[in-house]
Amino acid sequence: MEDSPRPLDPALLERILVQATTGPSDYNLQPWRFLVVRDDRNRRRLRAAAWNRPEITRAPAVVIVLGYHFPVRSHLDPMLEQAVAEGHCSPAKAAEIRGRAVAALGRIVDHELWATRSAMLAASRLMLAADSLGVASTMLEGFDADTLRREFGIPDDHSTCAVIALGHEAEPDSTPGRFGLDEVCYSEHFGQPWRA
Amino acid sequence: MEDSPRPLDPALLERILVQATTGPSDYNLQPWRFLVVRDDRNRRRLRAAAWNRPEITRAPAVVIVLGYHFPVRSHLDPMLEQAVAEGHCSPAKAAEIRGRAVAALGRIVDHELWATRSAMLAASRLMLAADSLGVASTMLEGFDADTLRREFGIPDDHSTCAVIALGHEAEPDSTPGRFGLDEVCYSEHFGQPWRA
Repeated sequence: MEDSPRPLDPALLERILVQATTGPSDYNLQPWRFLVVRDDRNRRRLRAAAWNRPEITRAPAVVIVLGYHFPVRSHLDPMLEQAVAEGHCSPAKAAEIRGRAVAALGRIVDHELWATRSAMLAASRLMLAADSLGVASTMLEGFDADTLRREFGIPDDHSTCAVIALGHEAEPDSTPGRFGLDEVCYSEHFGQPWRA
Repeated sequence: MEDSPRPLDPALLERILVQATTGPSDYNLQPWRFLVVRDDRNRRRLRAAAWNRPEITRAPAVVIVLGYHFPVRSHLDPMLEQAVAEGHCSPAKAAEIRGRAVAALGRIVDHELWATRSAMLAASRLMLAADSLGVASTMLEGFDADTLRREFGIPDDHSTCAVIALGHEAEPDSTPGRFGLDEVCYSEHFGQPWRA
């Protein structure tokens, strides 16, 4: 039974995924990708790649959030064409944005890091969207990226950024506390204590 | 006048920052750090490091979101002590978590990438918290990390992940559209079209 939990309403899942795509990204290149795993056998393969965590087979849907390294090569023109078609910018403005984007993104050294930033922003939106729609979510701490890549056909130019189990009851968190702002926040200069 | 916008209510800013810290992270190590810049002169220095974007001096507060690479060295014990003190876990459970965390985090190859994942999750929460509290936010696309590091004393073991301007009216976005799920979402296997 554990491996066949009650399915998540597909329309609800789709709403969560759409909300995950609404965040900002460099030049709106949207480098986040979502690989949704619902099939029982695939969730068992996924579980084997994620420290055998039982949440994965208990959850009706698991989303592997990927960061695509090179949308500037494949998605800049479609994005700008969409922006023009939807009346958000003129063709001249689109050409100007295109030039700036190609220049700026040509300076990126670590494409994995660049893509991961946007992918994690989307992962966060996905979890908060799930929460707002009454669907529990858990971000899994550990997974073997190479195994995921092999099992699910993820190419090298896509990084595996996060694995999020959706729809099961969350495990009780044994360390739910958070540090105060005195520990994680600075004013004006690194190391200078936070003061509101 | 542009360089001295109406200040953001400090209590509101603090609420936004606290909400930014509430997300999950590997072993609850909370590698996000927030450097809050409000001083006029400092916002001008920040603007110079971020393509001279006018949002920065128009905004009463700008948050540089950092990812700290090595909280396992400095914050694992304090986090576990806090969890025990707050009654979330027993000392024995804390010792067990400690062992697993040291082993798991010892396997990390790219500490910058690891820290950036959590920092961006926090950056996303920060923006959504601002939004829910009626404070506009803009994530700036480009900044010179080395200049930020030098100007604000950010050490090498902290990555500059995002710069978020808070409190000003958002610029009209010239490319607000997003790709549909057919472009960014897959079912069961990479490349397999999404179907709800």
